[in-house]
Amino acid sequence: MDQELLNKVVQGVRDELNKTTPTTSSDCPINCATSITEFVGTAIGDTIGLVIANVDHELHEKMGIDPKYRSIGIIGARVGAGPHIMAVDEAVKATNTEVLSIELPRDTKGGAGHGSLIIIGSDDVSDARRGIEVALATLDQTFGDVYSNEAGHLEFQYTARASYAINKAFGAPLGKSFGLICAGPAAIGVVLADTAVKAANVEVVSYSSPSNGTSYSNEVILTVTGDSGAVRQAVSAAREVGLNLLGSLGEQAVSTTKPYI
Amino acid sequence: MDQELLNKVVQGVRDELNKTTPTTSSDCPINCATSITEFVGTAIGDTIGLVIANVDHELHEKMGIDPKYRSIGIIGARVGAGPHIMAVDEAVKATNTEVLSIELPRDTKGGAGHGSLIIIGSDDVSDARRGIEVALATLDQTFGDVYSNEAGHLEFQYTARASYAINKAFGAPLGKSFGLICAGPAAIGVVLADTAVKAANVEVVSYSSPSNGTSYSNEVILTVTGDSGAVRQAVSAAREVGLNLLGSLGEQAVSTTKPYI
Amino acid sequence: MDQELLNKVVQGVRDELNKTTPTTSSDCPINCATSITEFVGTAIGDTIGLVIANVDHELHEKMGIDPKYRSIGIIGARVGAGPHIMAVDEAVKATNTEVLSIELPRDTKGGAGHGSLIIIGSDDVSDARRGIEVALATLDQTFGDVYSNEAGHLEFQYTARASYAINKAFGAPLGKSFGLICAGPAAIGVVLADTAVKAANVEVVSYSSPSNGTSYSNEVILTVTGDSGAVRQAVSAAREVGLNLLGSLGEQAVSTTKPYI
Repeated sequence: MDQELLNKVVQGVRDELNKTTPTTSSDCPINCATSITEFVGTAIGDTIGLVIANVDHELHEKMGIDPKYRSIGIIGARVGAGPHIMAVDEAVKATNTEVLSIELPRDTKGGAGHGSLIIIGSDDVSDARRGIEVALATLDQTFGDVYSNEAGHLEFQYTARASYAINKAFGAPLGKSFGLICAGPAAIGVVLADTAVKAANVEVVSYSSPSNGTSYSNEVILTVTGDSGAVRQAVSAAREVGLNLLGSLGEQAVSTTKPYI
Repeated sequence: MDQELLNKVVQGVRDELNKTTPTTSSDCPINCATSITEFVGTAIGDTIGLVIANVDHELHEKMGIDPKYRSIGIIGARVGAGPHIMAVDEAVKATNTEVLSIELPRDTKGGAGHGSLIIIGSDDVSDARRGIEVALATLDQTFGDVYSNEAGHLEFQYTARASYAINKAFGAPLGKSFGLICAGPAAIGVVLADTAVKAANVEVVSYSSPSNGTSYSNEVILTVTGDSGAVRQAVSAAREVGLNLLGSLGEQAVSTTKPYI
Repeated sequence: MDQELLNKVVQGVRDELNKTTPTTSSDCPINCATSITEFVGTAIGDTIGLVIANVDHELHEKMGIDPKYRSIGIIGARVGAGPHIMAVDEAVKATNTEVLSIELPRDTKGGAGHGSLIIIGSDDVSDARRGIEVALATLDQTFGDVYSNEAGHLEFQYTARASYAINKAFGAPLGKSFGLICAGPAAIGVVLADTAVKAANVEVVSYSSPSNGTSYSNEVILTVTGDSGAVRQAVSAAREVGLNLLGSLGEQAVSTTKPYI
């Protein structure tokens, strides 16, 4: 067995290990997830979307959810937190729902970052379901500027108008432009944060590091607000530097889906 | 090299990467673990069982162990926390030992959950050793309702009579029926918790989520108590829904050993 | 395809998955990391070294860095915390820099331990750069007594004279001998800690476990100080026991580079 063949196999296995397995309802045989009323759908990053029409009273209290929301929508993933916060931000803009909680497990399946568990609330389950559907449908876009290689990942997000999910997660002002710059290993994120704030006239909303503001993830995350053009410029400048720096630790980092910024 | 062969190799490698490597004393050559007096044995989940006959005085204090326990038994794993808590619960029922500490690292080797480090104390090292032996021997059973696929895992536990390990870990009442429902990614766990409490007349003992009660694991863990039949029913109902939901993110999840509930 | 060939492939893939990819500036084409002024170099463990000549004023404040340090050096890794603390300890001895912060993400790419993010400060960027260069160059040595197999890792460190990084990370006395004993899974570390303090007349500086002093890593970490010969003896005794115990969970654990103690 020659080296070339071995390399091919190794690549095949690596691809296999890295690939995400989005499934749609139509893939399911009888008696699987689609038979569960609570199931909404799945998406990239081992993301699952769910609803509960009428949360059990005792559980409701243990979860610490405001009693006025009978119905909840749930979106969670093994891989990704920023993309999910951005996607839920779009969902609450588009539907009659509110963000109840955002929790960030230390995950990404052995990667440097977070997974996510986000709960939205509504009076009626059809609103919660619609919100989760919108969020699931938005993930392909919000994963667009997540780049990764074998050593780590970079994440960039931008919106012209931050809504309630972004506000809850980062404390960013509502209705204003918002940008997120993130890198793991965290060391790269320190330089990207400096690059971003020097590239344009933006205001820092939050700066998080492994032991301060993350769930001990190996990331530095900077969020900024300001004039729309300035925020974009800050994010773009950091992205260029980030791709070069992460590339020094392995292969060229590639987009998870398709860059949108 | 055709696709089928590649698939076979990929499967072989995946099996290899996933497999646990339990070893027994008899596998060891001279000068290995069996030559260490502290070594008791190993089990599934990269679990190791150890004892210290007479813990060094200064270390004893730094570890925060009650000075009255000269001897300690130690069980720890890379993969698994619930199975180990349940196994130690049986151990303290069966031996003259007490549970001193339960710590849950964020681990599972890239998975969504915890590893474990549990310390039991005794006056005599033979009791500690016996306790650890019982715990190691019980793990095959307590891993029985741990199901996993490439996207995550489900865990279910049940006992008719909770003892001191379960009490210390979750605050469950002693001597009563106890059930545990857990899923990672955490989103699935939210629905399973709701399913469980709706399925039978049980009382919630604890509800844990990534940033509240876990070590930032990507899990929701519900524990319940109540009438024995009701607890079993709650656990079974959640298990059925869980297998369907986790299956939507990948292959059908399979038991680690053999279901016992 | 016979079993032997499959085994060979599996081994090849495992090697591939485990291997670190150190790169040097000379590997880089135009427009990569070397074109970034902040880039210093990379090393084992997915380590990257960086500098910022003049940290942005607003970011400086958000990072909580003492305003008197205009320039910072940054070293961070996906795999390894002890080796990096030891390497930065040598760097601050050898250069005109100070340790500003040490953060330990829960990482090691699916392993049991930490990654790292360490920031040093200086008046002049050339000092920060020199400090990071020294640290990067020292990592091959400080990874020498890091041993690992498929089940976990062991780490041992020793220096005759602890400086400011060791002092900041563990509270060890300056200018005295220092030893570090670490194992994951944590259970093994408990026995190694006991072995170390019984093997020689040393004083315990710190004892850390998954939920107390680590970032929920699956490790127990003991640090000791005392007479130089005693510290070495404590570390050596723990190393011998550690290699036997970790070996019980898999293959014989091997050094990452070349043992130095």
